[in-house]
Amino acid sequence: VTTRKSANGTKIPKSAREVRLAKHAEGKLTLGCFEVAETAVPEPGKGEVVVRTDYVLVAAAFQDMMRTDCQLPIPPFQIGQRMGLGAVGTVMLSNSPALGVGDLVMSMSGWSEYSVGPAEQYFKIDAKQFESPVYYLSQGPTAYYGMADIAKVGKGDVVFVSGAAGGVGSLAGQVAKCRGAKMVIGSAGSKAKVDYLVNELGFDAAFDYHDGSVVDNLRKLAPDGIDVFFDTVGGEQFEAAVQVAARSARFALCGALSAQNTSRKDASPRLDLMTVITQDVDLRGFCCMHTPEQLGAWAQHFGMWLAEGKFVFPHTIVEGGIEQLPHALIALLQGKYQGNVSLRVAAGD
Amino acid sequence: VTTRKSANGTKIPKSAREVRLAKHAEGKLTLGCFEVAETAVPEPGKGEVVVRTDYVLVAAAFQDMMRTDCQLPIPPFQIGQRMGLGAVGTVMLSNSPALGVGDLVMSMSGWSEYSVGPAEQYFKIDAKQFESPVYYLSQGPTAYYGMADIAKVGKGDVVFVSGAAGGVGSLAGQVAKCRGAKMVIGSAGSKAKVDYLVNELGFDAAFDYHDGSVVDNLRKLAPDGIDVFFDTVGGEQFEAAVQVAARSARFALCGALSAQNTSRKDASPRLDLMTVITQDVDLRGFCCMHTPEQLGAWAQHFGMWLAEGKFVFPHTIVEGGIEQLPHALIALLQGKYQGNVSLRVAAGD
Repeated sequence: VTTRKSANGTKIPKSAREVRLAKHAEGKLTLGCFEVAETAVPEPGKGEVVVRTDYVLVAAAFQDMMRTDCQLPIPPFQIGQRMGLGAVGTVMLSNSPALGVGDLVMSMSGWSEYSVGPAEQYFKIDAKQFESPVYYLSQGPTAYYGMADIAKVGKGDVVFVSGAAGGVGSLAGQVAKCRGAKMVIGSAGSKAKVDYLVNELGFDAAFDYHDGSVVDNLRKLAPDGIDVFFDTVGGEQFEAAVQVAARSARFALCGALSAQNTSRKDASPRLDLMTVITQDVDLRGFCCMHTPEQLGAWAQHFGMWLAEGKFVFPHTIVEGGIEQLPHALIALLQGKYQGNVSLRVAAGD
Repeated sequence: VTTRKSANGTKIPKSAREVRLAKHAEGKLTLGCFEVAETAVPEPGKGEVVVRTDYVLVAAAFQDMMRTDCQLPIPPFQIGQRMGLGAVGTVMLSNSPALGVGDLVMSMSGWSEYSVGPAEQYFKIDAKQFESPVYYLSQGPTAYYGMADIAKVGKGDVVFVSGAAGGVGSLAGQVAKCRGAKMVIGSAGSKAKVDYLVNELGFDAAFDYHDGSVVDNLRKLAPDGIDVFFDTVGGEQFEAAVQVAARSARFALCGALSAQNTSRKDASPRLDLMTVITQDVDLRGFCCMHTPEQLGAWAQHFGMWLAEGKFVFPHTIVEGGIEQLPHALIALLQGKYQGNVSLRVAAGD
């Protein structure tokens, strides 16, 4: 027997696939770092549920969590253990009064086709609130916290977002616009992404960072300098942003994607201290684990701005099932996607 | 006739000496950048005073103001014009009811033996408040603002001050102690300065940055990392401080003395963005022009802490008259002095 039936008639397999860390990432990520393995789907104990995974998040931070020198304030992935974090799924069996079969839930169950665990680890979500459950897997909390709380973006600010077509950047730029920024400039890695930022996401200007020097692009677009910089890239883009910082500029440092494939030492851009000092620049690093208050602030504004037609949720849903996850993470790090990325594991049965 | 007499009988010359910028500084400062010149001491107009300069401030920022690429938010020195800023002097002639002959005043009249100007540009100070008028030329406002307002140092913090025997650093470390820091570590450039920090200024620990790597020294002295970094040096000390930053560390970036003798590009240390991001480090640059509120906050705490015996004012008074000013600035940049530096122009007549 390899399946059993859920209370609503759906078959539940005895085992299912998950993606594990096969070896730690060093330098460029390779397929050899991942393993797709069969694992048991045990019977749920008292208070537990069995959840079929519908979508999982794919995000750049996962590469950091695959490294031996991971510095994030969350446990890195261990060899032989399941990878991933955010997932949306459907309850198939429930031994808890808190959740019923068919409920849509969000959890940190990661990259597996099924998961089993205490009901408290699954948060019931409203399937009708958004047009797709992947809206719950957005990187919006990071974008919102960085723009609103770290950079304190507001009326009249000239804003630069690096990696603006990415999961965080595409939302961060829109948050700045909604909070009254005068001008939002984005950088991206292709002509198609540059057009997308201006035509679809409402950026005031955008440039391809392969075209000329970043500092020249910024000087042309923002002759009076930038008040806010939201950085997901680091490297040359970070150095250029310091050069064009306006007085009392605020930098929200969120990621250093340009550094993902190099050693830590090479990945450290130069910091022009005299400019930082004489321009009173405030540079603040922050990372991606959020408090319930931060999650709530994002959810409230996201819902409001979507309803007002001021906001879009730029996202890519990768198809092909769980065995595509290693390819999807590598493609994301190569800049092949736009917006937030999730992978469809078993949606739409 | 080359002199006239003040109302109290003191002779006032018709001309006096001042130090002018002869050519802009590039790289290492040389004596050829300065000129000591004779200039007229004109008759004061209505509302004006004639002031004999007693002491003038000597500070590292003056080198920046001598460069063509000066980025400070104050006008740089112009070729052929008088250098310097802060000065303490004695009113010799007065055509204003606001000031009387013999009054001790502070002003921004710079590196000259005499100055003439509107009484509003001279602030009357209390000769009896401190043991010497040079206390009014301290760099305390910068030290206090950086520690209290930028770094928000407080109870339990582990603090690192680079260039701790310098004019700003020697006061910044004491401000941190007075505000309840758990441990204050200073770096300096000689064994004598290291001893001075610990034995005279109340630092908990200090090290010579020539002895071993800065990061090793810091790891040994602060195994749990540093919560606050007050930087006047930049370079390797800045890079090391990032490596040992505790979570949510605050960096007050005040100066980059290590960069004074090199080009801007070489003077930019590497910034390890991943550490800044994952440790939520806040780096804030600030520079040395202060609001009246900031000046007042320093004066209030300085007076209080001196009276309580918790604070000393580390300072060097250079003798030899105004022609020694070029030598004094070069010696200061070479690290030859301890604490705040002023030069005696005509005190104690």
